[in-house]
Amino acid sequence: MLKNAKITGNFWQNFMELIRTQVVPYQWEALNDRVENAEPSYCMHNFHVAGGKKQGKHGGLVFQDSDLAKWLEAVAYVLEWHHDPLLEQIADTAIDDIVAAQQPDGYLNTYYILNGLEKRFTNLKDNHELYCLGHFLEAAVAYYRTTGKDKLLKALVKYVDLVDSLIGAEDGKIHGYPGHQELELALIKLYEITKDKKHLNLAKYFVDERGKTPLFFAEESEKNGNHNHWQHSVFQYGYYQANQPVREQQTAVGHSVRALYMYSGMADVAQQTADKSLMQACLRLWKDVTTRQMYITGGVGSSEYGESFTFGYDLPNDTVYAETCASIALAFFARRMFEYDGYKSEYTDVLEQTLYNGIISGMATDGKSFFYVNPLEVVPKASEKNQLKHHVKSRRQKWFGCACCPPNLARIVSSLANYAYTQNGDTLYINLFAESEVKTQLNSGNLAFNITTDYPWDGTISIEILESTPQAVLAVRKPGWCDKFSVIVNEKTCENPMQNGYLLFENLEKGDKIVITLQMSVLLIEANANVRENIGKVAVMRGPIVYCLEETDNGADLHQIFLEKNADFSLFSLNHDKNFFGGATLLESPAKKLENDNSKLYQKAQSYKFSDINTKWIPYYLWANREEGEMLCWVHSL
Amino acid sequence: MLKNAKITGNFWQNFMELIRTQVVPYQWEALNDRVENAEPSYCMHNFHVAGGKKQGKHGGLVFQDSDLAKWLEAVAYVLEWHHDPLLEQIADTAIDDIVAAQQPDGYLNTYYILNGLEKRFTNLKDNHELYCLGHFLEAAVAYYRTTGKDKLLKALVKYVDLVDSLIGAEDGKIHGYPGHQELELALIKLYEITKDKKHLNLAKYFVDERGKTPLFFAEESEKNGNHNHWQHSVFQYGYYQANQPVREQQTAVGHSVRALYMYSGMADVAQQTADKSLMQACLRLWKDVTTRQMYITGGVGSSEYGESFTFGYDLPNDTVYAETCASIALAFFARRMFEYDGYKSEYTDVLEQTLYNGIISGMATDGKSFFYVNPLEVVPKASEKNQLKHHVKSRRQKWFGCACCPPNLARIVSSLANYAYTQNGDTLYINLFAESEVKTQLNSGNLAFNITTDYPWDGTISIEILESTPQAVLAVRKPGWCDKFSVIVNEKTCENPMQNGYLLFENLEKGDKIVITLQMSVLLIEANANVRENIGKVAVMRGPIVYCLEETDNGADLHQIFLEKNADFSLFSLNHDKNFFGGATLLESPAKKLENDNSKLYQKAQSYKFSDINTKWIPYYLWANREEGEMLCWVHSL
Repeated sequence: MLKNAKITGNFWQNFMELIRTQVVPYQWEALNDRVENAEPSYCMHNFHVAGGKKQGKHGGLVFQDSDLAKWLEAVAYVLEWHHDPLLEQIADTAIDDIVAAQQPDGYLNTYYILNGLEKRFTNLKDNHELYCLGHFLEAAVAYYRTTGKDKLLKALVKYVDLVDSLIGAEDGKIHGYPGHQELELALIKLYEITKDKKHLNLAKYFVDERGKTPLFFAEESEKNGNHNHWQHSVFQYGYYQANQPVREQQTAVGHSVRALYMYSGMADVAQQTADKSLMQACLRLWKDVTTRQMYITGGVGSSEYGESFTFGYDLPNDTVYAETCASIALAFFARRMFEYDGYKSEYTDVLEQTLYNGIISGMATDGKSFFYVNPLEVVPKASEKNQLKHHVKSRRQKWFGCACCPPNLARIVSSLANYAYTQNGDTLYINLFAESEVKTQLNSGNLAFNITTDYPWDGTISIEILESTPQAVLAVRKPGWCDKFSVIVNEKTCENPMQNGYLLFENLEKGDKIVITLQMSVLLIEANANVRENIGKVAVMRGPIVYCLEETDNGADLHQIFLEKNADFSLFSLNHDKNFFGGATLLESPAKKLENDNSKLYQKAQSYKFSDINTKWIPYYLWANREEGEMLCWVHSL
Repeated sequence: MLKNAKITGNFWQNFMELIRTQVVPYQWEALNDRVENAEPSYCMHNFHVAGGKKQGKHGGLVFQDSDLAKWLEAVAYVLEWHHDPLLEQIADTAIDDIVAAQQPDGYLNTYYILNGLEKRFTNLKDNHELYCLGHFLEAAVAYYRTTGKDKLLKALVKYVDLVDSLIGAEDGKIHGYPGHQELELALIKLYEITKDKKHLNLAKYFVDERGKTPLFFAEESEKNGNHNHWQHSVFQYGYYQANQPVREQQTAVGHSVRALYMYSGMADVAQQTADKSLMQACLRLWKDVTTRQMYITGGVGSSEYGESFTFGYDLPNDTVYAETCASIALAFFARRMFEYDGYKSEYTDVLEQTLYNGIISGMATDGKSFFYVNPLEVVPKASEKNQLKHHVKSRRQKWFGCACCPPNLARIVSSLANYAYTQNGDTLYINLFAESEVKTQLNSGNLAFNITTDYPWDGTISIEILESTPQAVLAVRKPGWCDKFSVIVNEKTCENPMQNGYLLFENLEKGDKIVITLQMSVLLIEANANVRENIGKVAVMRGPIVYCLEETDNGADLHQIFLEKNADFSLFSLNHDKNFFGGATLLESPAKKLENDNSKLYQKAQSYKFSDINTKWIPYYLWANREEGEMLCWVHSL
């Protein structure tokens, strides 16, 4: 991770400021039950009661603690780029409250502290204790990295020691693993700081043990009266990715966030232990997710039932789930695979795709309301009257009883620089394009540069080298969506070498000016013919941005609109509107609309009659910020 | 109803014989828990225990009694066209067992007799007492009409008296109505025999009271601890069609079988009481169902959730429900609207459409397995791996724990002559075309004729008049699917007058020979452009038969097949295969199949590349009688 990469303007800075000024303060109020007309969180309440500050009972869900953890992690990232002593003080106090609740043996989970410690670790499958520990570990590591303060980290290490003494391969220990994966990847983050093999080994144990026969979850279930919510579903233990050992898993199944957190943890363990068969599984699962089970928005997990993956090419646009958290988890997995599998742009292409579309669509432009579900086709009437689509909301909601998505959005957006830049030896990878100031220490010395860009609206990326070493290499991603580009270094056109989808710049000197221009055409995209729902349809993209139609611009019955697939793409006209929610490039295009002057439900097939219309397209992530209405990504084509 | 209309051969006789020789005996074994490897029904067991024949507890669902009722009704119809003293004796014994269970005050429901009579009529919303009574009434009326035996009928009249004394508008009575409608239409059948106004009035009360404020179901729910399964669904009380008074209901909502039984009962009451506003509601709901919420197969109720209607034009082919029972209920409603609204073919067209497709698709060709759900698009992998489609089975099942569909199929198919022919004064309507012998008494005297036809495979219908009166009118439906037809009477071409879609034949004399030839072209059908799922697709019909593609004939990935919409329909070749499940006309046609040589999930849109293929089409109702595989009705068109 780069300590000194700072996003300084334009697109991503806007989002980061939304997180800092809206989401983080709002969530703190929510965690303290001070938001009017919102379900109480009980999160801080639970810690106060568990720590003896006040009397009361545990409130909220079994994983309520994790909301605080994700908030703390986001705060740590924010503090890295925005000095804010008051926020840091609030965080310190929260950490005091957390640590005050810790039990003498290290245990730290308010649900069991308040509901009876004798039941702890008896339902790993469903009760999220290890999941909460994972999130606290991530927060503690982030907070330590930013502030140097280790109070929470030390407390968590003690808790990990306790877990390690109770769960593991040895006789007398519970041979279990987390019901909701998360601790695996968190333990690796801890290990990177502590270098304590015990932490690595515990993560490896969880990964290795999962799905082995006899199945721990089945045995635990039996002890708990055979309560298995998914018993009569298509999942069985696949919901938890525990249907078979992880190395044998061929396709992504079950709850998508669990799956992608697990794949991230698997990749971490594989990398740390040079485990080839585990890395093979990661490569296979990455391929399945991104080439067979991913929406064009980077949304994953197509089914609301169990918030789950289903099977290859099953990507309905209207009954879709595509949870914001699942796309965020995909970004986690993508970053790891990029780092562990040779720095290939196929990983960072997906990272970009999901960030600009399926992730940020989760938040309203004012940072005050959120989507769990990110559909590609919405008809408000269908959401209202058809239970299968009832989860597909046409308005973002203020906050959720199960508030996983907003704080998850907060932590990924506030740490965007960690995704934009990757350092490896003397090479600095530029994965995402954002106005920034970067100063980092390579093996050979300092590298510093500024980036000026209005990406994703404009394809020009200007890099000014402020400091470099002779050995430094700057590797700039050539996006997969881009066919044509030009490179000018110090006003001279260059043909730079390319490696794994990255343009390489070497022999950099102070004062060098690199201008990369990515040609940003509007592209009509087709889906693989195995995607039943998208046969005869196209989606519209420009750069990394997926576009959509909204009823407010185009009238109702968007499904009756046809685009001419073979028409010159210049039929799209661009209009950069500075007033459109902080500025966005909008598209306009002539199109055809099916005339429907027949009231019969079925009739002899005729040639379709069309009217000429003009369509207006907005970036997908901006949908549902105006009047309620239909929305559509995949339109019929002629 | 015609006493002497007998189906004597070909298409429908095959189905009727299946019902007689397979379904009726099999169901009797099932009702007596003598089917190996099937869930026990407990149905006769419950009656034997309730009647004191043996000791035990109640088994099965709260509406288990109704299975016996539907079986008895089917037996009554079978006995009308097939002399079978042994079957009649079994039915008599069953009736003895039913009556033996009746309580001194007339009450007759084994669930409450065995679980505590003090709880009877305390949960009309969910516990199906009045529903079971309705089915027993229908059985009793049918059995009385066929055999003249009134033992069951008398017992039921006593039970109705009890219900009438406990439920109704008067103070001190329960101001309730059935949670599952059925008794309304049954009471009218009873009234037609008894002419007792009390029976009509009770039906009218149920219809009038439903959905009125304050809502009975809400009050009852409160008394029962607010148990309302649909409280957090899109339905609320709309599941029971109790969301508003029936006369105010604008669209079909909620559980589709309940809805259509109710509409049938409403039509009966409206007819008997000359209630115009009630008939207006029936006309409105008929229109909504058949012009906005019906699959081309005559399937209705598009959502598995609550087995329900959703809203206009919401007709997904793959997550579909379209329960066999709902199509049967639609046929009930159609017959009534035909009789009460001026004998128009728009009603009998729908009757034919659903009978030849969505109803008989419910049964395998050997009469031994059944579909609840009748999809228009099936991918076995999707049913296996996507919970949203888990209810869509690719194989018919032997019998169901909730065995509503098989006996419902038995009762409609075994009484087919009652749908084929309708008598009104001196007019005899021929609604459906089946090889038959008909002899009936009109106002003016006897009318007798034979029909010879190989319909639906051949459009020629030959009618030979055996006896007639000068006043007799034969009205023969000109199907809506038929544009061209010819009429030859005694070898002379005629242009007969047409009324409400029926060809009229007057001045009939013994020996007259009428030959009607309906031109049976293969038609490509398009759906209304408001049906999102069918944009750019066509369905294939010939006569009343909807055709489909099966994987076993056409390979996998049926969704990649395209038909040329504008091509001459003669691109279809017909092949009447006598060996194909009792004989069926199959279709073949050239088509295009999308080439999919790209492994990318998304790419720049290209012109589609196609291969030329030959497609083979089978009648929809015959699908899933061979190897398991994909099936598709609506195919893409060019």
